[in-house]
Amino acid sequence: MKDQTPTVTTGPLPASRRVWRAGERHPDIRVPMREIDLHPTAGEPPVTVYDSSGPYTDPDAEIVIDRGLPRLREAWITARGDTEAYKGRDISPADNGFAEGARLVPEFPVGHAPRRATKGRAVTQMAYARAGIVTPEMEFVAIRENLGRKAQAKALARDGEGFGAAIPDFITPEFVRDEIAEGRAIIPANINHPEAEPMAIGRNFLVKINANIGNSAVTSSMAEEVEKMVWATRWGADTVMDLSTGRNIHNIRDWIIRNSPVPIGTVPLYQALEKVNGIAEDLTWEVYRDTLIEQAEQGVDYFTIHAGVRLHMIPMTVDRVTGIVSRGGSIMAKWCLHHHRESFLYEHFDEICDIARVYDVSFSLGDGLRPGSIADANDEAQFAELETLGELTQVAWAKDCQVMIEGPGHVPMHKIKANMDKQLATCGEAPFYTLGPLTTDIAPGYDHITSGIGAAMIGWFGCAMLCYVTPKEHLGLPDRDDVKTGVITYKIAAHAADLAKGHPAAQARDDALSRARFEFRWEDQFNLSLDPETARSMHDETLPKEAHKVAHFCSMCGPKFCSMRISHDIRAEAQKEGMEKMAEKFRDGGDLYIPLEDVK
Amino acid sequence: MKDQTPTVTTGPLPASRRVWRAGERHPDIRVPMREIDLHPTAGEPPVTVYDSSGPYTDPDAEIVIDRGLPRLREAWITARGDTEAYKGRDISPADNGFAEGARLVPEFPVGHAPRRATKGRAVTQMAYARAGIVTPEMEFVAIRENLGRKAQAKALARDGEGFGAAIPDFITPEFVRDEIAEGRAIIPANINHPEAEPMAIGRNFLVKINANIGNSAVTSSMAEEVEKMVWATRWGADTVMDLSTGRNIHNIRDWIIRNSPVPIGTVPLYQALEKVNGIAEDLTWEVYRDTLIEQAEQGVDYFTIHAGVRLHMIPMTVDRVTGIVSRGGSIMAKWCLHHHRESFLYEHFDEICDIARVYDVSFSLGDGLRPGSIADANDEAQFAELETLGELTQVAWAKDCQVMIEGPGHVPMHKIKANMDKQLATCGEAPFYTLGPLTTDIAPGYDHITSGIGAAMIGWFGCAMLCYVTPKEHLGLPDRDDVKTGVITYKIAAHAADLAKGHPAAQARDDALSRARFEFRWEDQFNLSLDPETARSMHDETLPKEAHKVAHFCSMCGPKFCSMRISHDIRAEAQKEGMEKMAEKFRDGGDLYIPLEDVK
Repeated sequence: MKDQTPTVTTGPLPASRRVWRAGERHPDIRVPMREIDLHPTAGEPPVTVYDSSGPYTDPDAEIVIDRGLPRLREAWITARGDTEAYKGRDISPADNGFAEGARLVPEFPVGHAPRRATKGRAVTQMAYARAGIVTPEMEFVAIRENLGRKAQAKALARDGEGFGAAIPDFITPEFVRDEIAEGRAIIPANINHPEAEPMAIGRNFLVKINANIGNSAVTSSMAEEVEKMVWATRWGADTVMDLSTGRNIHNIRDWIIRNSPVPIGTVPLYQALEKVNGIAEDLTWEVYRDTLIEQAEQGVDYFTIHAGVRLHMIPMTVDRVTGIVSRGGSIMAKWCLHHHRESFLYEHFDEICDIARVYDVSFSLGDGLRPGSIADANDEAQFAELETLGELTQVAWAKDCQVMIEGPGHVPMHKIKANMDKQLATCGEAPFYTLGPLTTDIAPGYDHITSGIGAAMIGWFGCAMLCYVTPKEHLGLPDRDDVKTGVITYKIAAHAADLAKGHPAAQARDDALSRARFEFRWEDQFNLSLDPETARSMHDETLPKEAHKVAHFCSMCGPKFCSMRISHDIRAEAQKEGMEKMAEKFRDGGDLYIPLEDVK
Repeated sequence: MKDQTPTVTTGPLPASRRVWRAGERHPDIRVPMREIDLHPTAGEPPVTVYDSSGPYTDPDAEIVIDRGLPRLREAWITARGDTEAYKGRDISPADNGFAEGARLVPEFPVGHAPRRATKGRAVTQMAYARAGIVTPEMEFVAIRENLGRKAQAKALARDGEGFGAAIPDFITPEFVRDEIAEGRAIIPANINHPEAEPMAIGRNFLVKINANIGNSAVTSSMAEEVEKMVWATRWGADTVMDLSTGRNIHNIRDWIIRNSPVPIGTVPLYQALEKVNGIAEDLTWEVYRDTLIEQAEQGVDYFTIHAGVRLHMIPMTVDRVTGIVSRGGSIMAKWCLHHHRESFLYEHFDEICDIARVYDVSFSLGDGLRPGSIADANDEAQFAELETLGELTQVAWAKDCQVMIEGPGHVPMHKIKANMDKQLATCGEAPFYTLGPLTTDIAPGYDHITSGIGAAMIGWFGCAMLCYVTPKEHLGLPDRDDVKTGVITYKIAAHAADLAKGHPAAQARDDALSRARFEFRWEDQFNLSLDPETARSMHDETLPKEAHKVAHFCSMCGPKFCSMRISHDIRAEAQKEGMEKMAEKFRDGGDLYIPLEDVK
C-alpha cells in the first residue's frame, strides 16, 4: 500500500506565509489566511488574501496523506452534545464497483467511526442558526470573510452595484448566523468531515468557486485525484466536487475527504448507478438511499440531488438542440420514462432531507434540465425544473437542511441576468451555484474562457458559487494543467464579480498590485498575482536577467517608450511646479475647437 | 535579400474552402467567405463564416511575399478619377531609425508610386457616402456582413438586446452608405493600401477585433512581424496595428502593408519619437506631420492620434494609482509639461484632417488618459479627454474624415456600461474601439481573460471593435502562441457580443456546432470551432484512436454516463410513445409538495 500513497504538492506560494486569526467568541478557533509580503521599498504592510489551500502551504505542517488532515472541527462537534458515534454501514464490494485484487484501490488506512445526530435532532448549521446559536463554524467564516480586516468606526466608502445583495462593511458572526438562518447562505460542513475549514456560500459573502475532479471509466487513478484536489485548493478552489464514475468510487473518495481542507461535494446518483451496473432503469430508492448514507458517513459535505427532473418535463426537452446534457438529469429522465413513473428522487425528497439533517449534508439541488447549447437557454424545460427546485427548497428548509441551487450551463449574455433574477425569486434567495455559463458554443478548447465571461457576469448579478470549466470541457478529462487553468480563470471571474458588487475588501489586492506595477516592483507584481509562477516565467521569457527585475521598464515598450516612467517624471514635475495653477491658466481660453454641432 | 523573405503560414483551415460572392451593383467585386463542410450524415449545407485571412488560406492563390498581395482595389480607386499618382516623399535614414548595413531591414522589393486626392478633393468613404455614392467598398462590406445569406421576404425572429443598436435583418449597400455618412461606421481603406479587403467597424455590424504586432527596441524582427500579421488574420483578426518602436520601422511596415489583407493601423507618434531620438520634448509638429505623410503614402489605414491629451488635464492624473499608462498619452503629456504649452496634436488637428482626407486614412482618436488600473477607472482625467475626443470628432467629420474613438483599459464590470453610454453621447455615435477592458488587475499572465470578460460585455453594449490583449500583457512581448491565444479569446468575446446583441446570422454557427455535438459528429465539432487544431488535439489526448471520432461517447463520462446518448434514447422513445399525452396524465395530481410558504 505504501507505494500507492499519493504525492501531493506542498510548500508556500512565493513571498507568502500562512497566518491565523483567533476567534473572540471561540478563542480556540484559528482562521487561516495568506499574507503576501511586499518589497521593503513599498513601505506597505503585507497583503492579506483568502486562503483555501489548507495545511499544504504551511511549511510547519506535517503532511501525512496516509493519516489525513487534523480533525479541527471534531471538538466543536462533540462539544455540542447532539451527536453520537456509531458503527456505520458495512462497506460492500458494490461500493467500489466490484473492483478486486490489484484493481482495488486500498482502503484509507485510518478508520473513524461515523457520527450522526441523536434521535430526532437536526445538526445542521441552519438548525443552530435558527436556534440563535453562533457556532464556531459561523465565527470562523465571519473572520475568514473579512480577510483580516478590523471593523471600522465609520462607514466605508463603497463603490459597486450589488443588484440587491447586502454585503456589510464588516462581517460579524451574528451576520453569518442570520444569513444561514434565512437560507441565504450555507456552510457545507458534514459532521463526518471535521478536517475541512469552514467556508460560506452566499450572495452576501465573497464569491466562491468549485473545481471538479474525479476518475472516469476511461481514465485516471486515486493518487492523481488526491493530488488534483490538493492542487485545485492551492490555486483557490473553495470546494471540490468528486465526480468519479468508474470503479473504486468509495475508496478514492475516502482518500480525498480525509485529506481535503475544503468541503467535498458529490453526485450520489453516479455511484448508485455503478451499483446497478450502469442500467438507469434498475435504479431504486433503496440503492440510492443506501448510497446517501454511505457517502454521508464518509463525510461528503454536499450532495447534488437531481430531484427537480420530473416526468412531465421530459417532453419539453424533446425538441431541444442538445436534449438533456446533465448526466444526472438524463439518468433520471431515462428512469422516469422507462417506468412511466414520477422520479423517485422527487417522491422521496422528504426522506432525503431526513438523512441530510442528521449529518448536516447540504443540498445542491441539481439542474438536470440545464441547457447544453445557446439555442436551448432559458427554455420551458429549464425554468419548469427551477420552479420545482423552489418547491424542494421549502421542503428542505422545513427540515432545517441547507440548500443551494444549481444553474446553467450555456446561456448567451443577454439571457444571464434573467437566470439570476428568476432563481432568487423562485428559490427564496437560496444561494445560486452555476456552471459557467458558457456564452457561446463555438470554442471547444477555450470553454474556460467562454464560460469565464458568463461566470463573472452571473457572479456580479448575485451567483454565490461558480463551478469551474476547464479548457478540456466537451473534449476530455482535465489534467493537472487544465485544473489549474480552470481554477485561475474562475478566481478571476469571482474576483471581478466581488469588485463589481463592491465588496469592501476586494479592491485592496488590485490596488496593491497596481501600485507595484507603477513602481516597477516586479517581484511584488508577480507575488500579488493569482499565478505568480506564470507571471514570472512570462516576464523572464523576454527579460530573463535578474537586473531586469528592478529595471524601470519592460520588454513591451523598452526604456524610451515607458509610459509608467514618464508618468513618474510628470508626477515629480507637478510637485515641483504647482501644476494646478499653471494648468488653470492654460485652461482659460485654451479651447481651439468650438463644437460644430450639438452632439448631445 | 532573398533569404530575408518571411515564411508565412498558408493553407486552408480543416474542411474549409475559401469562396466568393459577386456584387450586384459592382459585378466585378469578389467577396471572400469561408465555407466549412460538414459530414454527409449531418444532411446540412456548409456553414459560412466571416473570413479575414486573405489569400493565404486559398490553396489556389500564389503567395509571393516579395511581391505583395494582388491590388484588388486599385481599379476601383483609379476609376473614381479623383486621385493622382505622384512621386512621394523621399525616404530618409531617420525613417528607419538610422539603421545601417546588416542591421537595416531591406526595402520592400516592389515600389508603387503613392496616390493622393487631386486638389481640394476628399477621397474618403465618408465623403462618397455623404455624396450619396455607394462605392464598391460599401457593397463589398454589405455582402461580407451578411455571411452569404440572402435577403428574406419576411422579418426574421430576432433574439437579443442591442441597447439601441439597430442591426437590420439584412445589410444592403445603401445601409452601409448611410452608416458611413452618419459617422456610425467606418471603412478604414487608405487608397495606398489597395491590397486590403474592405471591412466595416460600427455598432450595427459584426463586432470586430484588432491584433497588435510590432517589434520593440528590445526584441523581434521583420520576418516575425510579417508572419504574426498573417497568423493573426488566419485566426480572425479584422485589423492589425503595427506598434513597432525600434529601428527599421519604415521598412518593416512596408513589408507588412504590402502583404496585409486587413487594414493596418499605427500610432505615428511612436515613429516620430524615434526620429527625435526618443526625446519627447524634441518632438515638433513638422516631424510629426512628415511622419503622417510618410505613413499615409505607404498605405496605413488608420492612425491613432493622441490629440485629446491636453495640458490642463495632466494634473488630473497626478493622484492616480497608475498615472498615465498610454505610451502616446505619456509622451504628449511630457511634451506639454516641458514646453508649458498646449498639445501640438490638438492645435494642429485641423491640418491632420487635411492630410487624412486626401488618402482616406481613418482616425482612431487615442485615449491617452485611459485608466491603467481598477482604481483609476472612469475618473475625471479619462472623461475629460473623452469630451475632447467628442469635439475632435466633429472637426474630423466636418472634413469628411472617418473617425473611431479609443477606449479603456482597466474597468471593473459595474463601470463598463457607463463608458459605452458616455462615448455614444459624447462622440455622436462614432464607433468605439476599446482595449479590453480588464476587469481586475490581479492576474498578469491571464490578462487575455481578465480583459476578454470586459471585451465581451462592452461589445454587447455597443463597442464596435475590441483590441486584443494577450497573455503576455504587462509582462513581455507576445510570441506566435500568445498572438493566437489573444485572437481566439477576442473572437470569443466578439461572437458572444454578436449573439447577445441579436445579430441575425450569429447563432447559426453555435447551432451547427451544438447539433454536431449532440450527434457525436466529432470532426464537425472540431471543424466548426474557432480553433480546430486545439479542439482536436485536446480530444485526442484522452481518446486518440480514429474509431473514437465516431464513438457515441467521450472520455468525460464514458459510455454508461453519456447524457447525450441517453437523450437520444429519450427522443426515440418519445416519438414512439406520444410523450405529451402520457406526461400530461402524470402532471394531473402529480405534485407531491405543496409550497410551505409563498416564496415569491
